[in-house]
Amino acid sequence: MKIDRHSTQPLYAQLKELIIDRISQQDYEPGQRIPSEMELCQELSLSRPTVRQAVAELVSEGILVIVKGKGTYVADDPERIEIDNVTAQRFSLLSAKSLAEFSNPTVETIPSEQTIDRLFALTETGHHPGYWGITWQQEESGACYATCQSLIPVTMFPDLGPDLRQGKRLIDILANKYAYLPQKTTGRILVRQARIDESKALDISRNAPVLVLTGIMTARSGHVCEINTTVMRADLVSLNIGSGRS
Amino acid sequence: MKIDRHSTQPLYAQLKELIIDRISQQDYEPGQRIPSEMELCQELSLSRPTVRQAVAELVSEGILVIVKGKGTYVADDPERIEIDNVTAQRFSLLSAKSLAEFSNPTVETIPSEQTIDRLFALTETGHHPGYWGITWQQEESGACYATCQSLIPVTMFPDLGPDLRQGKRLIDILANKYAYLPQKTTGRILVRQARIDESKALDISRNAPVLVLTGIMTARSGHVCEINTTVMRADLVSLNIGSGRS
Repeated sequence: MKIDRHSTQPLYAQLKELIIDRISQQDYEPGQRIPSEMELCQELSLSRPTVRQAVAELVSEGILVIVKGKGTYVADDPERIEIDNVTAQRFSLLSAKSLAEFSNPTVETIPSEQTIDRLFALTETGHHPGYWGITWQQEESGACYATCQSLIPVTMFPDLGPDLRQGKRLIDILANKYAYLPQKTTGRILVRQARIDESKALDISRNAPVLVLTGIMTARSGHVCEINTTVMRADLVSLNIGSGRS
Repeated sequence: MKIDRHSTQPLYAQLKELIIDRISQQDYEPGQRIPSEMELCQELSLSRPTVRQAVAELVSEGILVIVKGKGTYVADDPERIEIDNVTAQRFSLLSAKSLAEFSNPTVETIPSEQTIDRLFALTETGHHPGYWGITWQQEESGACYATCQSLIPVTMFPDLGPDLRQGKRLIDILANKYAYLPQKTTGRILVRQARIDESKALDISRNAPVLVLTGIMTARSGHVCEINTTVMRADLVSLNIGSGRS
């Protein structure tokens, strides 16, 4: 791409595109220094204010970074926390092998409520004692990258709340519960803006994008036994998925 | 949550949080009308300008919507295009059953280049004729929701470019190429800001978040035969994933 002096597009805007072009063609690579303002002026026969405006906007867009006393650099691609084997039950409590990674889960009782009952297909059963709502965080090197919540019907696991609070082992909690353990699961991944409680838990600004993985676990009995919602910092994670059977 | 007149937090900011709270607790549901400014003033003993500022900011943040002559509504959750059976090879060209959904693919030759050669483990083989770069779009009801690119080594499929341009059927293109067809695949999902060419192709603003699925396909021969990068509009899609074997 070249600077076109006869174009209706302002020169600084053309220069912005040219720099982005060079970054995407890896003429300028992430973490590398780009030519100085002076060098860009000379190479492209542009005025200093034009170059300055283009660079300033790219800095404010996070594409370039100014390192004081050193120059202007292409922003590094952020390092990602790699989440391996991402499937619908990746963060399921009932599918976990142990509670080792569930540091400080909080347990509350969530009353029976139409919207949730519909997801669990519990609308026809009349009054029931509601759900265990278990919430925990996922951390990596001290950074909280995900907040997880699982809903599990109290009728299936009447003692789950007290058991978790007492620190019982998962293997004991799930013993003799085979009919209620996840057998078939479906999952859904989408991106949306963080809600206020999520932005606080994940230490991100409101409206920042989050990656949401919802897993619906169905038991051998045919009933939904757990719905897990994991909200991840979109800027921090990368999800590894395998080749599925379709 | 209640409005606290002794808090250092401005009243309008408290009201914003209160409204968001009510939305997340589904007292106010998506698509429903919320009480009028007047009603909020009365219920919470707040002044008109306070209520107006809170509502105005929530409108500008896309949380509320004003429908002229009708009132203020909770914004609807956007409808999503559901992408089924998302796996590492979901958008792979060599894994496709036919070219029916590859409307207007463009084919170009991409010369051998260190960064790409490294991904294909083709650094040791010396000079080679580069890659076919095939680009196409995914559409649903007229909206382009994804732009896909596959890179395929020319050495493995010397005639792929001309074959695609001539409209040859995929089944004929891939005949007798079993050693070079995907057998093992790995995939990676992440969210990042759209690049300039992507924002144009997807008709979104620069810096809007995109969901990127990268699939690396390895052939029976042990060589990487295709790398597919699919860039999706994060606001439009939801990906359905199954229960994987881990």
